[in-house]
Amino acid sequence: MDQELADPAPLAALIGALRRLPGVGVKSARRMAYHLLQHDQPGAIALTQALAQALTELRHCERCNTFSVEPICALCADPRRDATQLCIVETPADQNVIEASHGYRGLYYILMGRLSPLGGAGAEEIGLARVLERAADGVVREVILATSFTAEGDVTAHYLGDALRARGLTVTRLARGVPAGSELEYVDAGTVAWALAERRS
Amino acid sequence: MDQELADPAPLAALIGALRRLPGVGVKSARRMAYHLLQHDQPGAIALTQALAQALTELRHCERCNTFSVEPICALCADPRRDATQLCIVETPADQNVIEASHGYRGLYYILMGRLSPLGGAGAEEIGLARVLERAADGVVREVILATSFTAEGDVTAHYLGDALRARGLTVTRLARGVPAGSELEYVDAGTVAWALAERRS
Ligand SMILES: [Zn+2]
Ligand SMILES: [Zn+2]
Repeated sequence: MDQELADPAPLAALIGALRRLPGVGVKSARRMAYHLLQHDQPGAIALTQALAQALTELRHCERCNTFSVEPICALCADPRRDATQLCIVETPADQNVIEASHGYRGLYYILMGRLSPLGGAGAEEIGLARVLERAADGVVREVILATSFTAEGDVTAHYLGDALRARGLTVTRLARGVPAGSELEYVDAGTVAWALAERRS
Repeated sequence: MDQELADPAPLAALIGALRRLPGVGVKSARRMAYHLLQHDQPGAIALTQALAQALTELRHCERCNTFSVEPICALCADPRRDATQLCIVETPADQNVIEASHGYRGLYYILMGRLSPLGGAGAEEIGLARVLERAADGVVREVILATSFTAEGDVTAHYLGDALRARGLTVTRLARGVPAGSELEYVDAGTVAWALAERRS
């Protein structure tokens, strides 16, 4: 819809800044701005403070690249983790999913992104040099690629796998298959095809 | 999903602040936080500045209650508008829709909300006293209620209509009916019922 009435400049700037958030269109941005200004000014103040503080205080863990206040995050500093295994994920949310499975006791590297040949995210943006340096610490024996099972996640896994194998590391990928607890009837055909091809005796 | 790994405090605070935005759940808030911190730090800085500036510089127009930098907004100050008509809308976005119709040359009052008996928004929250004071300026002759055609919008219109009529003002409501350009087949039955009941010769 056309904007018939000009917004006052500070409102237009706020709507513009909110639109830069992922998944937020102009209508949502406008609704968020009205909400913050009219119904939740304490929320607006909390958001400015939280943003400023996060920008100042958060850095990346020197070992796994996740967001951290300390130079080395708590998980990387935990001596009970198995330092011979390194699991590569796209985001801290993905890392959390692996932790919630209680099936992994090794360490992580968080890419904070993935290759997107069409979207313009190349090897530099996922920090390939840092991944390789981390994996080649002499302690890691197996690298588990746990990027998403999407086109971009697969490209990323393929690219990292080649580079890591070329340095003599053992590289594995999470198994693709039918989700635990699923009724086969409701599983998509592509997943079933993978589960068939990777069937185990 | 459970959060297995504790987020660093500044990240948790940022996710919490983003969750307060309307329509933003914990997953979206997390994605927004990663995006701002990892991929768009200039966007994060722009958002803190825009929020701080909007909170400082915006006030409500003394006449129509919309967001404005000046005490009286440009529309209220425009001598070409017909000051005998006052159109009451819920939000500046609704006002914009009316302006875009090019069918109205009067003035506005923006409630910045609506009655929500179940949601706890009562007469004070929509500023009934200010609406009545504005409408009773001695110049306004007709008040056009243009709140939404939803349960809450109807309650608001009903409530305002009663109060305004009690003060001797002429009150009208936008016509309910079949949208221009619609094929009847695709119009919902409630709308058709209204269009029948309010048919014109
Ligand atoms: Zn770490
Ligand atoms: Zn005004």
